[in-house]
Amino acid sequence: MCVKWFSTFRFENGVLHRIIRPVEFPKITLVGVGLLGGSVGLAVKQRGMAGQVTGYVRRVESVEECLATGAVDEATQDLEAAVTGASLVILCTPVGGMVELVEQLKPHLSVDTVITDVGSVKASVVHALEPVLPRFVGSHPMCGSEKAGVAHARGDLFEGAACAITPTNQTDPTAVETVSNFWNALGSNVISLTAEDHDAIVARTSHLPHVLVTALVNAVIGQPREGEAEFLGTGFRDTTRLASGSPNLWCDIALTNAEAIADSIDGVQNELQKLQAALHARDVSQLEAFFAKGQTLRDDWLKGLEKD
Amino acid sequence: MCVKWFSTFRFENGVLHRIIRPVEFPKITLVGVGLLGGSVGLAVKQRGMAGQVTGYVRRVESVEECLATGAVDEATQDLEAAVTGASLVILCTPVGGMVELVEQLKPHLSVDTVITDVGSVKASVVHALEPVLPRFVGSHPMCGSEKAGVAHARGDLFEGAACAITPTNQTDPTAVETVSNFWNALGSNVISLTAEDHDAIVARTSHLPHVLVTALVNAVIGQPREGEAEFLGTGFRDTTRLASGSPNLWCDIALTNAEAIADSIDGVQNELQKLQAALHARDVSQLEAFFAKGQTLRDDWLKGLEKD
Repeated sequence: MCVKWFSTFRFENGVLHRIIRPVEFPKITLVGVGLLGGSVGLAVKQRGMAGQVTGYVRRVESVEECLATGAVDEATQDLEAAVTGASLVILCTPVGGMVELVEQLKPHLSVDTVITDVGSVKASVVHALEPVLPRFVGSHPMCGSEKAGVAHARGDLFEGAACAITPTNQTDPTAVETVSNFWNALGSNVISLTAEDHDAIVARTSHLPHVLVTALVNAVIGQPREGEAEFLGTGFRDTTRLASGSPNLWCDIALTNAEAIADSIDGVQNELQKLQAALHARDVSQLEAFFAKGQTLRDDWLKGLEKD
Repeated sequence: MCVKWFSTFRFENGVLHRIIRPVEFPKITLVGVGLLGGSVGLAVKQRGMAGQVTGYVRRVESVEECLATGAVDEATQDLEAAVTGASLVILCTPVGGMVELVEQLKPHLSVDTVITDVGSVKASVVHALEPVLPRFVGSHPMCGSEKAGVAHARGDLFEGAACAITPTNQTDPTAVETVSNFWNALGSNVISLTAEDHDAIVARTSHLPHVLVTALVNAVIGQPREGEAEFLGTGFRDTTRLASGSPNLWCDIALTNAEAIADSIDGVQNELQKLQAALHARDVSQLEAFFAKGQTLRDDWLKGLEKD
C-alpha cells in the first residue's frame, strides 16, 4: 500500500511550522453530498487527509454535480461500493432517513470502520445507531447556512466553528478520538457532551430562534394588513433571515427534537405573557426591566465573545 | 430679508439636471438633537434647505456635542429662543415627553409655524397635539438604528427610507404639503395614512420583531443551561440584533402603543401554540406546512422587493 502524506501549518511564537503527517484515512465515504457533505469533501481534499473521498448520492444528476465541484474523487449511487473499504463513513443525510440507510450499509463495513454523522439532532440518532454500530460517534458541526446543496459547499466551512460530539459510556474510545481529531483537523472546536444535553441546548440556541422567526413571518406576512407591505423594512428582513432555511431540513429537525423544542417555546411564551400583562397595565417598571434586561444580556454576551 | 438658494440634482433620461430653488425654511428648529434630530440637521444643511438650523437640547454638554458634529448652526438650552421665529419645528424627543414640551414651546410659535415630529408611534401624539397645534402633522421617518445619539447622525439617513405622515381631516392642508415636501427633499418616500393604521401596522412590522427577539434573549441568555454558551452562534446573534436597541426608547414605544403591540403578540402566540400541538403530535403535514409557509412567504416578499 502506498502511504501518502499531508501537511498542515501552525503559527506559533512568530514561527510558521509545517507539520507533515501520513494520510490519516485511506478512504473516506460521504453518505449524502449536499452543503455539509460537500464541504467535508472539499476540506478533506484541500488538507490531503484522505487517500480517496467517495460520495454516495441518490440521484443520477448528483453524480455529475458533486464531481464537478471537486468535493469527491468518485461519486456513486451504489451504497455497497461506496462504503466498502472505507476507514471513515460520514452520514450527511437528513436525520429522519439515517436508520434505514444504516441498515442497508452496515453489512458492507469493515470491523474497524469509524462512523459519524452531521445531523443537527443527536439523541434519536445515537440511540438508534449505537446498538448496531459499535464504532459510531454522533457529531454536529455547527456551521449551517440558508444555502443548501453541494453547489454552495466550501472547504473552510468548519474553520473556527463549534462541533459537538456525543459519545456515550458504550462508545469505543478510539472511535471517539478518531472523530474528535477529524473535526479538529478541519479547523473546528470540538465540544463533547451527552446527546440529551446537546438536543436540549440546540433546541434553545438554534431551533427556538428558527421557529420563532418563522412564526413571526407566518403571523405578519401570512396575515397581512392593508398597506402593510411598505412598512416591512430591513429590521424585519434581518430578524427573519433564518426563516428562509430549507423546510425539509427543519421539518426533520422538528420531528426528531420535538419535545425539547416544544419546551423551549414555553420559555418564550412565558416572557411574552408577562410582557402582555405589563403592556395592558402600562407597568413602566416591568416594561423597563424587560427591554433593559434584553439589551444588557445580549450586549454582555457579545462583549464576552470579543474577549475570547 | 436676504433670500438664499439651494440646489438639488436629478438624473433623468441620461442628463443631470440641476434644480435651483430658494431656501424653503428661513429657520428650522430641532427640539432634541439625537440620532434622528442630528441626521435631519445634517441632511438639511447639506441640501442648503434652511437659512438657519437651531437645536434645542436639555443638557449643557449636548450644546458642544451637536455643534461639533455640524448638525446645527446654533444649539441652546433656551426653548423660547430655540423656537422663536422658526418656520418649521421638528420634535425629535421621546414620545412620552412631547405633550409637556409642546405646552412650554407653544406660546413662542408664530401663527404660520409648521410642526412635525419623528416619533415611532403616532395616535397618542396626534390626538394630544392636534387640538392645540393646528399646523401640526405627525411624521415617522423609518430609518432608526441600534446606535443612539448625535454622534451617529448621518445626512443620508433618510435617503430611500419610507416616511409615514399621519394627517387627519382637521389638519391644515398647506402644513401637510410642507411636511410631505420636506421629507421628500430629504430623499424619503412619503406614505400618508391615519395615525391608527400607522400604529397598528408598525406594531406588527417593527415593534413585534423587537419584543419577540427581546423575549428570546431573556428566555435563553437570561435563564442559561449549563454548557450552553458555546452553542450560541451567529444565527442567534443576527436574529436578536434588534434587542440591543435603546431600552428607554423601546419602553416609550411600548407604553404609547401598548394595546396594538399586545394584539400583535397574540398573532405569534397563536402560531407558536399550533406549532407546539403539531410537535407533541409529531404531525408531519402541519410541521411541513409551518416551515414551508415561512420560507415561501419570506422569499416571495424579498423577490418582490428586488423587482421594485
